Amino acid sequence: MTSTTSEPKTPRPVTYQELDALFRPQSIAVVGASANERNRGHGFVKDLIDFGFPGPIYPVNPRLDEMLGLKAYPRLEDIPGPVDFVISAVPASAILELVEGARVKGTRLLHLFTARFSETGREEEAELERELDRRIRAAGIRLIGPNCMGLYCPTQKITFGADMPSEPGNIGFLTQSGSHAFRVLKSGGARGLRFSKVVSYGNALDLNEADFLDYFAEDPDTEIIAAYIEGVKEGRRFFEALRRAAARKPVLVLKGGRSAAGHAAASSHTAALASQMTVWEAAVRQAGALEVRTINGMLDLMVAFTNAGPARGNRVGVMGGAGGGMVEAADLCAEAGLELPPPSDEMREALREKLPHAWDWVGNPIDISITGGGHSDTFMLLEMMAASPDFDAIIANVSGIEWALSRGDEEMFRDMLDRAKNLGKDSGKASMLVMGEPETRDTSIRNAVFEAREELAAAGVAIYPDIERAVESMGRYVRHLAEKGSGAAR
Amino acid sequence: MTSTTSEPKTPRPVTYQELDALFRPQSIAVVGASANERNRGHGFVKDLIDFGFPGPIYPVNPRLDEMLGLKAYPRLEDIPGPVDFVISAVPASAILELVEGARVKGTRLLHLFTARFSETGREEEAELERELDRRIRAAGIRLIGPNCMGLYCPTQKITFGADMPSEPGNIGFLTQSGSHAFRVLKSGGARGLRFSKVVSYGNALDLNEADFLDYFAEDPDTEIIAAYIEGVKEGRRFFEALRRAAARKPVLVLKGGRSAAGHAAASSHTAALASQMTVWEAAVRQAGALEVRTINGMLDLMVAFTNAGPARGNRVGVMGGAGGGMVEAADLCAEAGLELPPPSDEMREALREKLPHAWDWVGNPIDISITGGGHSDTFMLLEMMAASPDFDAIIANVSGIEWALSRGDEEMFRDMLDRAKNLGKDSGKASMLVMGEPETRDTSIRNAVFEAREELAAAGVAIYPDIERAVESMGRYVRHLAEKGSGAAR
Repeated sequence: MTSTTSEPKTPRPVTYQELDALFRPQSIAVVGASANERNRGHGFVKDLIDFGFPGPIYPVNPRLDEMLGLKAYPRLEDIPGPVDFVISAVPASAILELVEGARVKGTRLLHLFTARFSETGREEEAELERELDRRIRAAGIRLIGPNCMGLYCPTQKITFGADMPSEPGNIGFLTQSGSHAFRVLKSGGARGLRFSKVVSYGNALDLNEADFLDYFAEDPDTEIIAAYIEGVKEGRRFFEALRRAAARKPVLVLKGGRSAAGHAAASSHTAALASQMTVWEAAVRQAGALEVRTINGMLDLMVAFTNAGPARGNRVGVMGGAGGGMVEAADLCAEAGLELPPPSDEMREALREKLPHAWDWVGNPIDISITGGGHSDTFMLLEMMAASPDFDAIIANVSGIEWALSRGDEEMFRDMLDRAKNLGKDSGKASMLVMGEPETRDTSIRNAVFEAREELAAAGVAIYPDIERAVESMGRYVRHLAEKGSGAAR
Repeated sequence: MTSTTSEPKTPRPVTYQELDALFRPQSIAVVGASANERNRGHGFVKDLIDFGFPGPIYPVNPRLDEMLGLKAYPRLEDIPGPVDFVISAVPASAILELVEGARVKGTRLLHLFTARFSETGREEEAELERELDRRIRAAGIRLIGPNCMGLYCPTQKITFGADMPSEPGNIGFLTQSGSHAFRVLKSGGARGLRFSKVVSYGNALDLNEADFLDYFAEDPDTEIIAAYIEGVKEGRRFFEALRRAAARKPVLVLKGGRSAAGHAAASSHTAALASQMTVWEAAVRQAGALEVRTINGMLDLMVAFTNAGPARGNRVGVMGGAGGGMVEAADLCAEAGLELPPPSDEMREALREKLPHAWDWVGNPIDISITGGGHSDTFMLLEMMAASPDFDAIIANVSGIEWALSRGDEEMFRDMLDRAKNLGKDSGKASMLVMGEPETRDTSIRNAVFEAREELAAAGVAIYPDIERAVESMGRYVRHLAEKGSGAAR
């Protein structure tokens, strides 16, 4: 399917039920646990405690007696109870000994934060990786990694970082990059996204993108699937899994290493092999998945599929900002394949009384300045568009929330927030709100804008930092719904 | 040149010297001055006072005796001294009377904030606009507008808004949209941009884009020209002016109303006439100007031309963020036409001692995680790339400033800021820093990040909110320099 061909290996199939059982460990050991707070061997233990993992957590390190109130063990073999899941933060040189310990303990799932294998480009370390593969196969251990952050699963209270959303959600994200996992959980979390599971799987020595895609396709908690992939291990299997997944759920795919330079970077990152981009792109499209070019683009579509709401077509009603901003919104919509029907005669008639000075001048996008800055007129117009059968979706580019705050008008501010939360909700229409970084230099207003944005995001409003990203996402989102022949996002 | 053809009018040529004299009024009257703080007739007076306009400011309104400590006059004719510049905030219905007053006072320049002329699409109001044109021609008055914010000129202490940069700078911006004028002055100001003049000129009944382009091309204070245009009044003259300007200085052009929907929006905004986009694009390119698609894209290139520094080619050295972020930086650079040469043998040899664990693993982009988060290694690598003859430009995607602040490490934080300020400065290389919206929810750290960003912007660092916008700008910037055959930005 692609030119991606690694050394052929005997496949290790895994069913949904098997993988799901592996993702529900009752006990976790962190090997390479550390007293040094700057060390990930410290962070894995602390984050599991803070996140509330309910089963036993075993720090493992011959030089530690205890850690964060937990008894530490010299070796895996010394732990008294069963160990379902092992997280490894030891150097690569200690990895074979660790696998032996896991084998003795009957561990079924191993996550290697441990890096410096084939991605270094050195033969010695590539050989160590091959030996590791032989050993885990012999021991019947399944492996996430090496060179990755591992598993985030809020229903099981498992995490690999601090400040991650504690509530579970509907997005399943598989990623070869740990930094993208952090980025999506943190930036996405602040935008109101929640996740069923995030799997950072690095070099994919054992469990790979096809396994995780199949898992998320089956997983009832996952409604939207996103994948960051640098190189696929089993081309044919991957595209079959992608097709199966995309037939059931929206699947967003970001390919890292599209260019020669990017591929070289990906090789040094996760030892990814090259693929032909034209073949790749055609195959992703044919599978019915959505390709994105950047992690921001992926976040934007995650927000659309999670929070924008259903749309039956591409006719969008836009509150466009003032003057030139409104013109820009119009151009961007047209260039994104969105239609901008003019307000109907019926809507104009209704406006004749409500906006006597401008009823015949209201267009689409609406120039927000014709409301004279009155927020109730702004939201009245938005609500009329949301109620009108002429539109399938609404984009609200309103800077009024910061303005209301800067005027100290608490009542107006609360009213805007409430109406923004409800916009389009009862009308069966997709809606997006543009709310960028605050412009003010007043720190208390700035903080209030951030709080308001968080409140809106938490209430399920699809928020975008600027009009171009909102329009781009809306265009791709409604086109995807149309192609799938479904007016509903899920 | 384009299909733009308005009713042919007798040209009113204006020389650089004439326009420059008009832009230096010794006295200003605001007709339609108001005691109501929410009214622009209040704002124009207050903003001129606050900005420190040194000459007399005359509020004009028959229902006012005084305003903000200034004596008010019933009519222009009642003002005792000369009135060089009149700002009109009266309704359109009062405009002919105002022009008569200005004629009597010998006023040479008139700015009409006053709107509701041909942009409403109503014949009655289009006819009023034509009558206005006849009257100002007869009186020898030159006009900015109608339907616009007018003139911002910091050397003359003239402004149309509060919180605008008080220091003058090197960018001349002509715009049919007042909201884009505010956006560029505020968002651009926060990014360290400063302006020679900003002219918001709305419907361009008299002075138009060709006049302002010619002016900025001649103006010694203007090194970079930017234009937001919805419809040109004199197609041939405009493209001749554009060619002259672009031969001397970088010219950024944003066309509003590119699409049919955008054009309809532009008509209702500034009564702009249609142009054929393919003809337009080819003509802008042929003139040697840079076309941009969004106001953010324009701001990004303003930052590049003002603060990035010179570049002799497209070979860029990138500190790429961690893991997947680094791969993304590589793909984006390749897709933007930037070359990513690998570190030279010489650089690797120098690194053998300085980074013994990773010297042979350093690529381009550099994966920031190989420095183990050590900020001094990060900046050492950046400084080595800046000093190496293998690179023409540097992009630093470092999230470390927020990290240093969150650790409370003041010394590290100051050192990072100082090194970021100097990056590339002495090496004759373009450099850009990626520093987005802070990720933290801690308000004091968030405010400190904003302050740090302002400090860097004020020190002349070219800052971008994300890697995609930095790379896109760098690609267009270095390509433009190459086409102009000049390694220096100006």
